[in-house]
Amino acid sequence: MSRPRVYLAGPEVFLVDCAAVIAAKRDLALAYGFQPNGIAEEELDPAGLSLFEFGHRISLANEKAMRASDLIIANLTPFRGISADIGTAFELGFMCALGRAAYGYTNTARPYFERLKDDYYHGAIAKAADGATRGPDGMMVEDHGMADNLMLDGGIETLGGILVRRDVEPDRIWSDLSAFEDCLGAAAVRFGLAKAV
Amino acid sequence: MSRPRVYLAGPEVFLVDCAAVIAAKRDLALAYGFQPNGIAEEELDPAGLSLFEFGHRISLANEKAMRASDLIIANLTPFRGISADIGTAFELGFMCALGRAAYGYTNTARPYFERLKDDYYHGAIAKAADGATRGPDGMMVEDHGMADNLMLDGGIETLGGILVRRDVEPDRIWSDLSAFEDCLGAAAVRFGLAKAV
Repeated sequence: MSRPRVYLAGPEVFLVDCAAVIAAKRDLALAYGFQPNGIAEEELDPAGLSLFEFGHRISLANEKAMRASDLIIANLTPFRGISADIGTAFELGFMCALGRAAYGYTNTARPYFERLKDDYYHGAIAKAADGATRGPDGMMVEDHGMADNLMLDGGIETLGGILVRRDVEPDRIWSDLSAFEDCLGAAAVRFGLAKAV
Repeated sequence: MSRPRVYLAGPEVFLVDCAAVIAAKRDLALAYGFQPNGIAEEELDPAGLSLFEFGHRISLANEKAMRASDLIIANLTPFRGISADIGTAFELGFMCALGRAAYGYTNTARPYFERLKDDYYHGAIAKAADGATRGPDGMMVEDHGMADNLMLDGGIETLGGILVRRDVEPDRIWSDLSAFEDCLGAAAVRFGLAKAV
């Protein structure tokens, strides 16, 4: 039986130790019976390309890898702000549209509402005249009890996946893979794989 | 001929004057010959639902509306940080996976690299030992000459759309629709529509 191909989405490529973290994630995916599927950006040649053309080439390669994958596991840990990496959100939407199995995890247990209220608005939210809770900029502060925007949590829910939230030590926010492994375990059950480790 | 159905994605629902802005966008879409296609969140009934269940219901309705749309025009103006609204990014990825026509606009001309360098890192980026430009947190600072993450710009490029960047007066960041109208104009040409205004 050929292994289900898993697209590993997340902002790991930006890390100083990206090679080690990505290798660890691929090894875990293999141990659970999956074939990690993705591009190695360092294999893409920027020679002769504009900045935009090179970025577009990476985008094309990622889209091709997603179409050739059976499931996605998305690292939705907040990145450069209160929400998940925006490229990862795009990729999760991409895979949800294709109806592929979708899993996500975030290395913070705090829901989106708490991050928006405390980290972004520093507590300065209040009930407005229209009955909605709003920040000082007038923007509505939504609370759906979700890890992030409702399209992300909702998309995973619709496809029967799970979105694991787990607090980790602050210095392990990008290296702790226990929530990732929870996703692998759930997906392995779904795909009928026996864990090999 | 039935009108092409356009899914209007963006964070407008969070605005104080969301009804007026959304109505103005729908009216413009109609004037260009499109049928605006989306859900009216106020028509969804939260009665008896948990916060999560209600959020999921909105997600399902949005996904259904996207599948029934011929194109997307996404407001990618930075929202609650240096990137576009993350739900909008999910939706753009969703429509790109379906191969629908995709357009985007942002009411700032500043590229992602500038926002990341100045707004997020306050200029504190430098060439690291590995040759990559990095912030003080070690994260790589990418520059693809794009409006946002390469998956967003790249996905629109692949589908032959445009991503309009335009500076507007700061107090009109959420109300100025000229860049949105640029997208409508480009899409109208593509869909063979005559502008009716």
